[in-house]
Amino acid sequence: MSNNSIGTFFTVTTFGESHGEAIGAVIDGCPSNIELDLINIQEQLNRRRPGQSSLTTARNEVDSFKIISGVFEGKTTGAPILLLIENKDVKSADYNTIQNFFRPSHADFVYQQKYGHYDYRGGGRSSARTTAPMVAAGAIAQQLLKRCNININSYVTAVGSVKINKSQHEIDLSLIDSNAVRCPDTEAASKMEALILETKEKGDSVGGVIRCVIQGLHVGLGEPLFEKLNANLAKAMFGINAVKGVSFGDGFESAASYGSLQNDVFEKVDGNWRTTSNHSGGIQGGISNGMDVLLDIAFKPASTIMQPQTTANKEGLQDVFIPGGRHDACVVPRAVPIVDAFAAIVILNHLLIHRASVGF
Amino acid sequence: MSNNSIGTFFTVTTFGESHGEAIGAVIDGCPSNIELDLINIQEQLNRRRPGQSSLTTARNEVDSFKIISGVFEGKTTGAPILLLIENKDVKSADYNTIQNFFRPSHADFVYQQKYGHYDYRGGGRSSARTTAPMVAAGAIAQQLLKRCNININSYVTAVGSVKINKSQHEIDLSLIDSNAVRCPDTEAASKMEALILETKEKGDSVGGVIRCVIQGLHVGLGEPLFEKLNANLAKAMFGINAVKGVSFGDGFESAASYGSLQNDVFEKVDGNWRTTSNHSGGIQGGISNGMDVLLDIAFKPASTIMQPQTTANKEGLQDVFIPGGRHDACVVPRAVPIVDAFAAIVILNHLLIHRASVGF
Amino acid sequence: MSNNSIGTFFTVTTFGESHGEAIGAVIDGCPSNIELDLINIQEQLNRRRPGQSSLTTARNEVDSFKIISGVFEGKTTGAPILLLIENKDVKSADYNTIQNFFRPSHADFVYQQKYGHYDYRGGGRSSARTTAPMVAAGAIAQQLLKRCNININSYVTAVGSVKINKSQHEIDLSLIDSNAVRCPDTEAASKMEALILETKEKGDSVGGVIRCVIQGLHVGLGEPLFEKLNANLAKAMFGINAVKGVSFGDGFESAASYGSLQNDVFEKVDGNWRTTSNHSGGIQGGISNGMDVLLDIAFKPASTIMQPQTTANKEGLQDVFIPGGRHDACVVPRAVPIVDAFAAIVILNHLLIHRASVGF
Amino acid sequence: MSNNSIGTFFTVTTFGESHGEAIGAVIDGCPSNIELDLINIQEQLNRRRPGQSSLTTARNEVDSFKIISGVFEGKTTGAPILLLIENKDVKSADYNTIQNFFRPSHADFVYQQKYGHYDYRGGGRSSARTTAPMVAAGAIAQQLLKRCNININSYVTAVGSVKINKSQHEIDLSLIDSNAVRCPDTEAASKMEALILETKEKGDSVGGVIRCVIQGLHVGLGEPLFEKLNANLAKAMFGINAVKGVSFGDGFESAASYGSLQNDVFEKVDGNWRTTSNHSGGIQGGISNGMDVLLDIAFKPASTIMQPQTTANKEGLQDVFIPGGRHDACVVPRAVPIVDAFAAIVILNHLLIHRASVGF
Repeated sequence: MSNNSIGTFFTVTTFGESHGEAIGAVIDGCPSNIELDLINIQEQLNRRRPGQSSLTTARNEVDSFKIISGVFEGKTTGAPILLLIENKDVKSADYNTIQNFFRPSHADFVYQQKYGHYDYRGGGRSSARTTAPMVAAGAIAQQLLKRCNININSYVTAVGSVKINKSQHEIDLSLIDSNAVRCPDTEAASKMEALILETKEKGDSVGGVIRCVIQGLHVGLGEPLFEKLNANLAKAMFGINAVKGVSFGDGFESAASYGSLQNDVFEKVDGNWRTTSNHSGGIQGGISNGMDVLLDIAFKPASTIMQPQTTANKEGLQDVFIPGGRHDACVVPRAVPIVDAFAAIVILNHLLIHRASVGF
Repeated sequence: MSNNSIGTFFTVTTFGESHGEAIGAVIDGCPSNIELDLINIQEQLNRRRPGQSSLTTARNEVDSFKIISGVFEGKTTGAPILLLIENKDVKSADYNTIQNFFRPSHADFVYQQKYGHYDYRGGGRSSARTTAPMVAAGAIAQQLLKRCNININSYVTAVGSVKINKSQHEIDLSLIDSNAVRCPDTEAASKMEALILETKEKGDSVGGVIRCVIQGLHVGLGEPLFEKLNANLAKAMFGINAVKGVSFGDGFESAASYGSLQNDVFEKVDGNWRTTSNHSGGIQGGISNGMDVLLDIAFKPASTIMQPQTTANKEGLQDVFIPGGRHDACVVPRAVPIVDAFAAIVILNHLLIHRASVGF
Repeated sequence: MSNNSIGTFFTVTTFGESHGEAIGAVIDGCPSNIELDLINIQEQLNRRRPGQSSLTTARNEVDSFKIISGVFEGKTTGAPILLLIENKDVKSADYNTIQNFFRPSHADFVYQQKYGHYDYRGGGRSSARTTAPMVAAGAIAQQLLKRCNININSYVTAVGSVKINKSQHEIDLSLIDSNAVRCPDTEAASKMEALILETKEKGDSVGGVIRCVIQGLHVGLGEPLFEKLNANLAKAMFGINAVKGVSFGDGFESAASYGSLQNDVFEKVDGNWRTTSNHSGGIQGGISNGMDVLLDIAFKPASTIMQPQTTANKEGLQDVFIPGGRHDACVVPRAVPIVDAFAAIVILNHLLIHRASVGF
Repeated sequence: MSNNSIGTFFTVTTFGESHGEAIGAVIDGCPSNIELDLINIQEQLNRRRPGQSSLTTARNEVDSFKIISGVFEGKTTGAPILLLIENKDVKSADYNTIQNFFRPSHADFVYQQKYGHYDYRGGGRSSARTTAPMVAAGAIAQQLLKRCNININSYVTAVGSVKINKSQHEIDLSLIDSNAVRCPDTEAASKMEALILETKEKGDSVGGVIRCVIQGLHVGLGEPLFEKLNANLAKAMFGINAVKGVSFGDGFESAASYGSLQNDVFEKVDGNWRTTSNHSGGIQGGISNGMDVLLDIAFKPASTIMQPQTTANKEGLQDVFIPGGRHDACVVPRAVPIVDAFAAIVILNHLLIHRASVGF
């Protein structure tokens, strides 16, 4: 029930604040005797790191990581793995005004009220910087999943009102990283990029949507009634900063539709079961049905905007908050590897749980 | 990690199948020395029970409950409470065809694949009937929350393409139960009712959306990073049958918007903090901020429809599935008390967790 | 973290009080598609039930059980199994004096203080009667373990100052149930029986020790550092009423000895690893090493004695407590199947956990 | 269920191996806004550290710690606290022979079998060195408990066959650290010291017993049936290396005694409830009764002895193992602060759990 842990079996516990000495994670329950690909971990961190393109915050973190324990001679030992990432480009001075304000829609207010004392620098523990060790842990999870032919690929489907113009089967997942937005519909990507830069110039921020596609899952992952696969994926996604909605398959659209249009009928082709459509998004009764798992994650626009806002200061008096610091005008491009990572941790956890009882 | 338990502190474990002898729940961690209002529990069960109106399934269950343990002289003792509800109107014969088919979009297929052996009668464990004991447990949770002035009220905001036409502050929550749809916008309610009846006549089903409003929450519930209030509410909601999407505050709409429009600024009025708007839906950084918590839950149309569907039978051959059994053309009216119950269990659990460390 | 649950994977949640309508358990996480031997479950309940011999309490409970869910056509479905045992021979009148006293060394006092309100009849929730459903659940666990060639056999090694006179390898486990004491050293058993009857006549109670022998465990069960096999076995044993000590292998005697005498050296015989001695009791570093797991459990004499005791009544005034009710002069003969059951639940849980990661 | 975590609420997750770069712990769930006494943490680490006296191993570790997160301006923030302790005096060369042997009664064998790959240097993860961060975390727990007037003091009661000669109420706890053995009976301490030195000269090791005394606990800690205070204390103690037995109050001696001698009767003195004796060791029905909690922990002699032992090498051939490395001839003096720490973590965890529901 540790609040900063995710996963009951493959368990990732994170620690660290935006402007502390370091952030990191302890991974417990990683299967032993597995050779880790450290370069791949770094690549995933690079996809998340700030300063990677003109679209992202100017904070410049190399985000190189160290593994302190749990790996011996390059292979996992089954002991907990400590991942450590130093904070280097820390400009606390930028954040001095935060001391005096509860920034609009930020967590400053609730942290102060809940904890009585909190590290306000850069948002402290509530900063999205805390997702960096999750990306590293998720990269390890993805390496394990790939051994089971399970692949996770997320991409941006919307930035503000600009939406992708292709249906799922038209998407070429290999194009995700072909542009800075991480949208494989390159035409839409250009418009999204333009919108982000325009928003950035205005000192505003804009929201977006990410779709996560999980391929290669066999039938049977998910433990009803209350540890359903969709339930745990959704819970994990709401652990990511700025997420305001999660849906599966046809999601909110299915609510406006009819059973006769939404039902996925079964067929058996060459001895393999499948459904002829995938409105369910690969999950029925909380259990994977062998089709691609599809989920959509809605991100609100980042609360940090470079515009003066009239709000109450910490004394409760109306005042104008003029933000300093650095920010992303749109968080979704950098959130893509974060979604990948969170999904991978959930899927691996469910895979291990499933292995415990199957074929007893 | 018990799969059929929800809540780490106020823990509800359910058991039972649609056509077994009984269904029920064990509630562990209920504070002691609390007088229970049994009539209120029955009232909530009545709101969920089948056969309550022309909109709902013809299955006729009184759903009276018994408390077998954990209550002595009318008051809780801190020991586990066993709630037992008998299954009475069980017509297994209706479901004989289920034996031969994996019904489209039902959990039959994944249960068979995962467990090797399952109770197919009426969907067995995957039936929405398993939510009945949750409603009883949730009623107890709501009674405890009311002592803390926390109130939970859900209502239907959409049936198919018919949507409520009022904004949140225009809603009169006392009207929820004034109609069979449980939509407090009575004009919209009439249209929804008509749509459900029309759909029923066609033997089809239609989806819908429920909004859940949690009032009176003080600041500070929710435990970042991975036991956030929104994360646990979302996880719980995906434990309800047919749920395909969950969002908070402005949800997916916020993804299409700008920070300058979405930010909730603070003010202090008469010594009390509040935000002037509530786009965040009462939660920031995963912690309640004292405003109403608002979440929307999308339900797909029920998979059971009274139309022949061509699908594979259990041998994998294409065949026409002609359903028998009973069903709801639209599940959302009866899902309202279920949403209330699941939300109440989550909130009470977070309240207890919060009490553990606060003011140490 | 549910307080009345044991096991993280094969999870048993119990409910019920000594003099309520029924007691029982929900078993969650039982592997599916397993045919249950119901007669064997009843046999284990019979070994625990009161009134089985002249050594035990006069309370006469048939302890027949019903399975309400989770089993279909005789086989497990993976859904939670509800076991229900009715309380029949309930003589609450016997216990009227309990209302006025906190009985010496009983849990009345702490229950009153902790919960404010408790069911005092027969000790309510703190009664050893709550172990009955554990025995039924443990019988199921033992059936699953036997499929893996793991056998658990406990027996009495001491009653008061009468101790067994044989070393572990001289014990014939098939003799355990050959006498009412459940001591396979029949000579010692006679003396134990005499001591119990003598103690009973005096209205006193006497303590005892049970040894639990777990055979057939393969190497590798137990999850260091904090979910060690010995740690979880010990925790479970302290969940049994009246247990005051638990030790493994040479236990407290090893504390008085030297490493040169205690070390178990390895040998490989016919391709199989073993240790030439078993001072460690089959566990090293918290992990099973393939040798028999041996643990000893010390039971204090039952707190209920048929002698007047001067103690404080609930008003805090010195008074003479003259007990009514029924009791066992020595609890260890009936505790043997309880120890078997608790051990089986722990071992099965560890076996499932182990299966999750092994051979990934 | 994370295997390297202890505590459900105040959760300590440890990581690190004997000869890795560093060891440490993440503390999650620490109440916020608490000023930490860092000097006190170091003092507790010093009590555990190797090289502190002639009785202990020659490994020389300063064991200075760093706090990387969760503390801001000297006070806790409610965010996870990372404690890091570097390994400095690492002489891996000493352990080269370990590569070729499964050392008698060590965890090498089971780690190899369970994990396929393990860090054998100095015992890797199974080394008692992993208790260092637990001592630091326990010091923080003790600081929090002291605010509630709860004090934990452990001391050595036996080394080999030399036992303390005083009953509990004759012990002056302030003398614990007055000698290197940490036995407050100074006469016995001298004999123990002599025995340890004599054993050390022989290259042998000797076992011992530690008593843990928890004072100031109010009534009501412990959550029956399966999260009893004694159950969780015992489980924690078996998490300490070399522990083979745990008992409460009169422990195994009570098993040889009678109810009429063992029962603790109640009295109310000056409005305060107490028992006139404390055979129960402060716990009844798994719940603290307000008296001192007393538990005894038996440690086997350390498996590392400086004598040649004939055992199987890793190929399974009989061979003579001549150990190198460093060791303690008797572990109990250094285990005293470890017992304090583990007990403190358990007690604080139960205190927080208790606060959640009390006075609802």
